[in-house]
Parts: sequence; C-alpha cells; structure tokens
Amino acid sequence: MISLIISESALELVPFELEDHPSVVSHARKLGKYPSDILLDNSWHFAAMKGIKNEIKRGRPDLVHFSILEATTIPLYLQNKLNLFVHTVDDKVIHFGKNVHLPKSYHRFEGVIEKLYQEKKIMAKNELLLEIKDQTFSELIDEINPSKIFGFSTEGQLSSYEKIAAQISDNSCIIIGGFQKGHFSGSIQNKITNLYSIGNESFESHVIASRILYEYEKTIFM
Amino acid sequence: MISLIISESALELVPFELEDHPSVVSHARKLGKYPSDILLDNSWHFAAMKGIKNEIKRGRPDLVHFSILEATTIPLYLQNKLNLFVHTVDDKVIHFGKNVHLPKSYHRFEGVIEKLYQEKKIMAKNELLLEIKDQTFSELIDEINPSKIFGFSTEGQLSSYEKIAAQISDNSCIIIGGFQKGHFSGSIQNKITNLYSIGNESFESHVIASRILYEYEKTIFM
Repeated sequence: MISLIISESALELVPFELEDHPSVVSHARKLGKYPSDILLDNSWHFAAMKGIKNEIKRGRPDLVHFSILEATTIPLYLQNKLNLFVHTVDDKVIHFGKNVHLPKSYHRFEGVIEKLYQEKKIMAKNELLLEIKDQTFSELIDEINPSKIFGFSTEGQLSSYEKIAAQISDNSCIIIGGFQKGHFSGSIQNKITNLYSIGNESFESHVIASRILYEYEKTIFM
Repeated sequence: MISLIISESALELVPFELEDHPSVVSHARKLGKYPSDILLDNSWHFAAMKGIKNEIKRGRPDLVHFSILEATTIPLYLQNKLNLFVHTVDDKVIHFGKNVHLPKSYHRFEGVIEKLYQEKKIMAKNELLLEIKDQTFSELIDEINPSKIFGFSTEGQLSSYEKIAAQISDNSCIIIGGFQKGHFSGSIQNKITNLYSIGNESFESHVIASRILYEYEKTIFM
C-alpha cells in the first residue's frame, strides 16, 4: 500500500473575514446557503480574495477535485493499493475510506465537501467514507510513517516518471501540491526524502498524479 | 501531429422538449438564463432526463470537461502535437485552435461552452480558439483523413497502452467515448481500424486519454 497526499490544498470554507464581502454574499444567496457554509472559490470570490494572505494557495476547489478524481478512478485505487489524503492549506486533513468515489459533477462534489465540513464524517452502510480532522502535514506524516517520501519540484533531481516509479516501494508516500502556483512550503519540502523534477518543466499537479500513479501501477500489476 | 476525438460526447443544450420541465426551469432561473441556453446536465436535470432517447449518452458535461482537461494540460498538446475534437451525441463537432486552455472551474467552462453554442466561434486576438459546427463523426474523419484510427473497447484485442502507443504514427487518430456508459455506436466503431482492450477491464474515458497520450508522448519526446 502506498499513499498519496495532495498537500496544502486550496480548499477551505469561506473564512470569517470574507463572509460579508459582496461577491461572497451574492454567491451564497444564489446557492441558498450561508456564506460560512460554502467553499472559498476564486472563480466566484475573486474580488473578495484579492490580496488575502497566501492568496495563490487558496480558493481553488476545482483543482483539488480534479486531482482527487485522477487518484480515485484508477485500478491502483480501485484495488485498494492506494491511500489518499487531502491536506489543506489551513491544516486540515481529509481521510478517505476504501473505494470512495467522489462525484465528477463539480456541484455535487461541492455539496459532499461542504457536508463533510459540517458533519466531520460521512458514513455509508456503517463504513467511513470521508473524515476531516484538524491535522498538520507533519502530524499526518507521523501517522502514515512512510519509508520514503517522493515529491516533485523544478528544484528536484532530473528524472522520469518511469525511473521514479521503479524506486517507489510499498509504504512509500507521494506528495503533490493541491494549489495552482508556487512551491511547497518549507515545512512540506523538509519532509520529502526524494525530490525530483521531470524534464525541468513545471507540470500541473493532476498530470503528475496521473502519470506517477500509472507508472507505479505498471511496476506492480505487470 | 495526431488527433484525439472525444466521440458521442454527452454535451448539448437543453433540447426543446425538456425546456418546460420543472427541474430545468428552476435550474435555469437559478442561473438567470433561458432553459434553451443552458447545458443539459444530469446532475441538475435528472428528473427531466428520465427515459429520454439515448439517455446514457446524454447530459454529462462534467465528463466531457474532464477529458478535455486531460488532453489540453499535457506537453503533447502544449507543443502543438495533438489536435483535439469534441464530437457530440447530436452530431456537432467542437474544433480547438492551437494551445487553447479551457477553465478548470466547471462553471467557467460551462459559460464558455454556452457562449460557443450561441456564437458558434470564439476568437481571441484574431485567433480562432473554439468553433462548433454541424458535422457527423464520419464527416469529421473524412476531414482529418487519418492513416489509422485507434479505439478502446472491452471487445478489442487485448494489449497495453505502451504497445498500442508504439503503433501510433503521425497522422493517427485516437477515439475515446465522451459518455458515461455503454459502447461506441456502430457508425463510430466501423471506422476504427485498431480496436484494443486493456486488461479486459472497462476504464473511464479520461483514464484512457491520459494514459495513451502519455505513452505516445514518451515515444516522440524520448
């Protein structure tokens, strides 16, 4: 079993200080929800988010949705050989049960995640599907206790997905960023034992996720 | 240059006969649009869509969005070595210009596609970004005139992405389905010259797209 952490994900509810901003209020009204119960979303709350702290790592639930789908629709996950965690920029961690399928339709995904923030756990037939906890990246790593931690950055050692996959062993952990731009924070990067770069290019997280998981799958299924 | 066709895509505006259904009317009102100007979407219009003709290949713009993003965020596309076409279940074809990036945020994607249906072309700086035409799958194939046409189906010959990619030559065309369930229609499958199956499993289209394009990329970039 290996783990994938989507780290510093741009996923959070609208924070208190933005609840009264006109772009948030009108969007919440449209949805028939309270501002404090909806996901912060740059595509709706752009005006409200302008200049907030750590802006480039916030309010992109669409990117997180996309990376989650990359991980949860492949044989590796469907055969319970991949543990998935979504660590958020404000230090919460979503833990996934076995064989959890999140909706591909964005507004249904949004509904599930907003419910999770309210109820902390989502169960079905006595099985835990999703749970959100207050947990730092470092605490999550202590809990997983992986043998190696792989990360991708243009600052890493030049390699290929294929070569990197050959080094991934059971109990390894792969880290991708859950944000649009920028690098891992120091506290994340410090934990990475194997930092690689692919062709000196900067890739979007979902591309890295799908490619490295596919190459790893090949090493164990063939 | 190779081509990717997302075929029989579950993408269309709300059809005339469903415009007055309560689930459509209330959703359109929420969006502040006319029912005839919005995308048919199973996640909102489930009640209206129940029992309509060809139901399983309709009203899943989320799946089409996801497959488009798989194709347009990778080096192969960014370096203009991949032509993308979205053929729809009602025989329209969206043609993509060079280096077109569609929004990852679903509601922005929806806005772009609805605008495209209204205006037929979307331009930026005198360059064509997107164009939608009345065109059958067969007419599109005649226009592309590919040397080989690759398709994936559990009925195809057993192979792997790697082996299939080795057979893809310049001017090949890859077909994936833009729908949730079911097989290609006869008129599509008849055109496929190389029909393959991967491990006898049924995969989601976006997984096939990302994997076969990645393996092909490896053959030309390495």
